[in-house]
Amino acid sequence: MTNYFSSDFTLGILGGGQLGKMLLAETRKWDITTKVLDPSPEAPARLACNEFVVGSLTDYDTVYNFGKGVDVLTIEIEHVNVQALEALEAEGVRVYPSPKTLSIVQDKVDQKLFYGEKGIPTSPFSVFESPRVLQEEALEYELNYPLVWKSARFGYDGNGVKVLRNDNDLEGLPEGLCVVEDFVPFEKELAVIVARSSTGEIAAYPVVEMEFHPEANQVEYVLCPARISDDIAEKAQALALRTAECFEVVGLLAVEFFLTKEGEVLVNEVAPRPHNSGHYSIEASYTNQFEQHLRAILGLPLGSTESKAAAVMVNLVGAEGYTGEVVYKNIEQIMALPGVTPHIYGKRETRPFRKMGHVTIVNEDINQARRIAEEVKRTIQVIA
Amino acid sequence: MTNYFSSDFTLGILGGGQLGKMLLAETRKWDITTKVLDPSPEAPARLACNEFVVGSLTDYDTVYNFGKGVDVLTIEIEHVNVQALEALEAEGVRVYPSPKTLSIVQDKVDQKLFYGEKGIPTSPFSVFESPRVLQEEALEYELNYPLVWKSARFGYDGNGVKVLRNDNDLEGLPEGLCVVEDFVPFEKELAVIVARSSTGEIAAYPVVEMEFHPEANQVEYVLCPARISDDIAEKAQALALRTAECFEVVGLLAVEFFLTKEGEVLVNEVAPRPHNSGHYSIEASYTNQFEQHLRAILGLPLGSTESKAAAVMVNLVGAEGYTGEVVYKNIEQIMALPGVTPHIYGKRETRPFRKMGHVTIVNEDINQARRIAEEVKRTIQVIA
Repeated sequence: MTNYFSSDFTLGILGGGQLGKMLLAETRKWDITTKVLDPSPEAPARLACNEFVVGSLTDYDTVYNFGKGVDVLTIEIEHVNVQALEALEAEGVRVYPSPKTLSIVQDKVDQKLFYGEKGIPTSPFSVFESPRVLQEEALEYELNYPLVWKSARFGYDGNGVKVLRNDNDLEGLPEGLCVVEDFVPFEKELAVIVARSSTGEIAAYPVVEMEFHPEANQVEYVLCPARISDDIAEKAQALALRTAECFEVVGLLAVEFFLTKEGEVLVNEVAPRPHNSGHYSIEASYTNQFEQHLRAILGLPLGSTESKAAAVMVNLVGAEGYTGEVVYKNIEQIMALPGVTPHIYGKRETRPFRKMGHVTIVNEDINQARRIAEEVKRTIQVIA
Repeated sequence: MTNYFSSDFTLGILGGGQLGKMLLAETRKWDITTKVLDPSPEAPARLACNEFVVGSLTDYDTVYNFGKGVDVLTIEIEHVNVQALEALEAEGVRVYPSPKTLSIVQDKVDQKLFYGEKGIPTSPFSVFESPRVLQEEALEYELNYPLVWKSARFGYDGNGVKVLRNDNDLEGLPEGLCVVEDFVPFEKELAVIVARSSTGEIAAYPVVEMEFHPEANQVEYVLCPARISDDIAEKAQALALRTAECFEVVGLLAVEFFLTKEGEVLVNEVAPRPHNSGHYSIEASYTNQFEQHLRAILGLPLGSTESKAAAVMVNLVGAEGYTGEVVYKNIEQIMALPGVTPHIYGKRETRPFRKMGHVTIVNEDINQARRIAEEVKRTIQVIA
């Protein structure tokens, strides 16, 4: 077995945002040598790594040269140069998740086709060369609105995604390959994080429930456990495990679901990395998702995915109407509430809806945690 | 209120060992700007701070110049230049714990006299100018062996402390002021960590129980909660709180106790900083001791000191007979046990009994955690 601890073994991380930063907390805990690549010299993960490299994540040469110097290469963001990862993998660098998994996930059309091919339940969809073709169809047929348009490439946090309610909404969509899905009138949005090790060991975290901000299309609260029946929880976990096996993912796979009013679970999207829906695990789980990701990609035994207590996670996003040097107004008030831990990502400048941090509320009782979460949300303000 | 988060506010930390390193995990969580001073360029806390300065902790000028550049100054080790801290405090730097508290704690004679003066129960003791005086007494009287000799200054991890069983043990003790205490035939050794904020808010963690290695005089297991009656737990917590008030400590005060066979609790020693006996809190407490220390010295509300689950902490010290580049043999085996999290401090070289890391075992049941801890201890080996 490789000696990872206080050794010359080096882990490379593509991306230095908040996910990279939280992963570094775990590499420091185990004294694993790390190297991080990010385009911004101000990236949150510029500290706590052994080496920080400023450079593009999508440039072949930059990613290739960065990866040549590491033993295992992982990501904290999907939008990286996959061709460079393929070359590195061919030359013996262990790349987790694999370039193959990444290339499917990067492309929302490929992702949907993959679900179809593997028989993974997902919402009905059609693929179009461009929104133009869809507009032409709309002239001939009555489309079954509402629909959801997703561009094949580079959607992120609500970009590249649009709910279409009528023919007018087809105007102004960016050109290019896209998928159009039936809008699922869901009861809840759920997620399950699966860890799958390079040895094939696999484990699922409990099902969490996501409450979205109605306007920004960003997650506002994540609740663990989800307030659903055991039956539905088992169904979602089983489907998440099967999805991770289909992708042959090594590391984490966050699987997001729609729970329909009929009690069906449909896979919405996946992310092969630590995920916002798993941040609660830092305080609530026996093994947090970042430590679990390390265990999985290093071939170490997976840790327990059970929770020590219930938890709610609140995203801290920049308030509307404020841009500039960030101030976390009333943060000391929320810190006086029981079981509250803020996480500040370390971005100096706030913008409307920018992810600036999150707050975890841990409590024996999920309903009590949810009430405190609402007070947190009402009290703290991310302003300039 | 000062804006500590993603701001220009700077926290200085004297000492860059494992305690400093674990404190930095919390400053990163909140994006608090930090500066660390340590004599070793290889110190565990060289990473994850914003600025790392190599220099002596006991040299007046080095500590003074370091402290001039920060807003709040704290320590992770007591043996620092207190005169420099006094000058900094006089010039408006907030120094927590205060130089006054530190100067009492640094000196084991002053510490004992302080307990006497404040009526804090402690073992009976006498102060001697030097062990020579004690030897002279031994010629005239029969001494009441066993006794414990402690040098006034710079005892650490069993250095500067010796159990005296007969007149022969008086030979070879280093010169200098010392205290000689009655040896307490204790039932258990206990500890309580108290947090006291710059605002005066105060809170005690649960009582923990320490099991010592018979030869190295180092803590082998720490159990939270201690396996004692509620009566004794309340007595120990109340005494810890009173002791912290007497010291007017700001930050943490770890109070170590002897529990006598008669059910009395006697203060043995204190440390005004995060402490080995509180490492379990990283995984088990709602607010870990390092976050709590930050809350206290920054005047933020204290967090809950309650536990989410029971925990046992096992110290990882270098095995006897091995010196050189460290290998954590069988670490992957202990990681397969439920609720086990290793912490590796990041010292490349192991030596017999050197503190290299610790392992936390979290479980709903303290007895089950203790059993797993024994398996951890039996399995992992810190060798070269």
